[in-house]
Amino acid sequence: MSKTINKLPKLVLTDIDGVWTDGGMYYDQQENELKKFHTYDSAGILFCKLNNIPTGIITGEKTEIVARRALKLNVEYLHQGVKNKLELIKSICKKLNISLEDVAYIGDDLNDIEVLQKVGLSAAPASAPSYIQNMVDIVLTKKGGEGVFREFVEMILEQNGLLDSTLNKITGIIQ
Amino acid sequence: MSKTINKLPKLVLTDIDGVWTDGGMYYDQQENELKKFHTYDSAGILFCKLNNIPTGIITGEKTEIVARRALKLNVEYLHQGVKNKLELIKSICKKLNISLEDVAYIGDDLNDIEVLQKVGLSAAPASAPSYIQNMVDIVLTKKGGEGVFREFVEMILEQNGLLDSTLNKITGIIQ
Amino acid sequence: MSKTINKLPKLVLTDIDGVWTDGGMYYDQQENELKKFHTYDSAGILFCKLNNIPTGIITGEKTEIVARRALKLNVEYLHQGVKNKLELIKSICKKLNISLEDVAYIGDDLNDIEVLQKVGLSAAPASAPSYIQNMVDIVLTKKGGEGVFREFVEMILEQNGLLDSTLNKITGIIQ
Amino acid sequence: MSKTINKLPKLVLTDIDGVWTDGGMYYDQQENELKKFHTYDSAGILFCKLNNIPTGIITGEKTEIVARRALKLNVEYLHQGVKNKLELIKSICKKLNISLEDVAYIGDDLNDIEVLQKVGLSAAPASAPSYIQNMVDIVLTKKGGEGVFREFVEMILEQNGLLDSTLNKITGIIQ
Repeated sequence: MSKTINKLPKLVLTDIDGVWTDGGMYYDQQENELKKFHTYDSAGILFCKLNNIPTGIITGEKTEIVARRALKLNVEYLHQGVKNKLELIKSICKKLNISLEDVAYIGDDLNDIEVLQKVGLSAAPASAPSYIQNMVDIVLTKKGGEGVFREFVEMILEQNGLLDSTLNKITGIIQ
Repeated sequence: MSKTINKLPKLVLTDIDGVWTDGGMYYDQQENELKKFHTYDSAGILFCKLNNIPTGIITGEKTEIVARRALKLNVEYLHQGVKNKLELIKSICKKLNISLEDVAYIGDDLNDIEVLQKVGLSAAPASAPSYIQNMVDIVLTKKGGEGVFREFVEMILEQNGLLDSTLNKITGIIQ
Repeated sequence: MSKTINKLPKLVLTDIDGVWTDGGMYYDQQENELKKFHTYDSAGILFCKLNNIPTGIITGEKTEIVARRALKLNVEYLHQGVKNKLELIKSICKKLNISLEDVAYIGDDLNDIEVLQKVGLSAAPASAPSYIQNMVDIVLTKKGGEGVFREFVEMILEQNGLLDSTLNKITGIIQ
Repeated sequence: MSKTINKLPKLVLTDIDGVWTDGGMYYDQQENELKKFHTYDSAGILFCKLNNIPTGIITGEKTEIVARRALKLNVEYLHQGVKNKLELIKSICKKLNISLEDVAYIGDDLNDIEVLQKVGLSAAPASAPSYIQNMVDIVLTKKGGEGVFREFVEMILEQNGLLDSTLNKITGIIQ
């Protein structure tokens, strides 16, 4: 189910619905919509920053909701309403002068399939459809909306021997 | 619990509350209301479209919430505030020149009972009351609001040998 | 845990937070608040009506949310902001010329304790604190917000031999 | 996992996100945000009041949501947008002429670590990251948002022989 993560990615990208959320889309009577994020995922972005790894959100939906969340967490790349995620990611890689092998990506559904099959490290939440779980390098223990993005980042750092030093940088306690 | 699904339905219909949602109705202090949909169900509608099977929503409630969701997903038939679901479905069948035997329906409560007993293929979520579960052809593994409509459609396509080709049409990867 | 329910109550009363909801209180940034009800509980009210048993909501909170839900479901008695639930229920009993022995009540917390100890039939959701569960006649299998009020009403009707006839009245199918 | 709580704290402090909530942050399309509290935690505050123990909320976020909840429950200390929780708590202790040993604190994430390591009694919800759970005196059975703050207060009172008398004060039944 899981391959060894022995190389630090140079870019960490993520889908939103079903990853940062449980897939829920709240509709009201007045054209408004809500998504429920989990506070734990914010540390995933922070952990990447502390290790100088840029992060990005790539989603097929397009909402103010996600724009606001990305802004609050200082996510470097935000691309919404994306039809072809693989092409977009290739163009980011070109700009950063890195290859798809250097990219870690977590997604959970149909429009993530191409990306999940091409990047260096692919992951899916425990709540993803079985045919998505079957094609990724890592199936995480958390479901979408439970902090699975943070779990993904912690696993990458842990297996590269960087988690403890990262936690120490934040808490400033252990030296 | 489950009968063999060896015939492709010509129409796939669905209830909303307790099927596309977990039955939750969010009320606020200002006459507003919300329902929580799951992004996974949208693929259920898409899968039907790719196999030229029209879809429809038949619900006893009447909200802007459901109208907006149906519009976003391009659901062919939307009937809200329906008192007698069976009569309505008969009239749709007449228009399409098909019989109740050609209809697949998923519902979970009292006003679905008549329909569930008359259509060609009936299903209920794992969260439906036991007396509803006991009268349907298929009790799905997911609860309402977890993507159970998509599970229903995937099961129909799978048992008719159409799921892989449908997924291939979408991802454009496997040929 | 459960005593025999061999007498039909003449009044069915219910708490709201933690019974009709999972105890969740959604606050926003603009003085608004939401509660999440479950569609299944609406049948609990309907089942009582079909057996000529009046129903009532007695809650310590006071919101437009609950007023709207009670109105939609045609609940006979609605009392919000109640400090002393037992005194209020006694006054309703007096008006109806019935005794506390004729009342069935479901509640889950501190301000329900007096009532739960005095009515003819007391119940609590599976999610209630242990010291509440220990003092009621019936601990239901559902948690608050999952349709536990309906479960309570169905159990009462079932044990009085009235559930099948009630379902038949609604569906109009079995005779 | 759990040390004996044989001393009544003189101050009970709590984090909010992931403790009073399940970590969920609901964003909408119009700059609004929601948090979901649990009605059960309100009794935690009440139980402290009845034993003359002041309570406080210390959170890194800053919202009207939490201000309103604190006001409703009459929480004595409310500090939002706190960068250094330990320094703030030290200043409260100084004002109250108590020491960190007299403080009970429940938190679940990075900015709680320093405090959890210094106070007299530290606790975390069952949903906290493992490295937080490993550093606290008590890991509670409930997750954030399920009433875990109340569980913490009840445990403190129980182990100091004060829970029954506290419940009696409220219900006024047992003497």
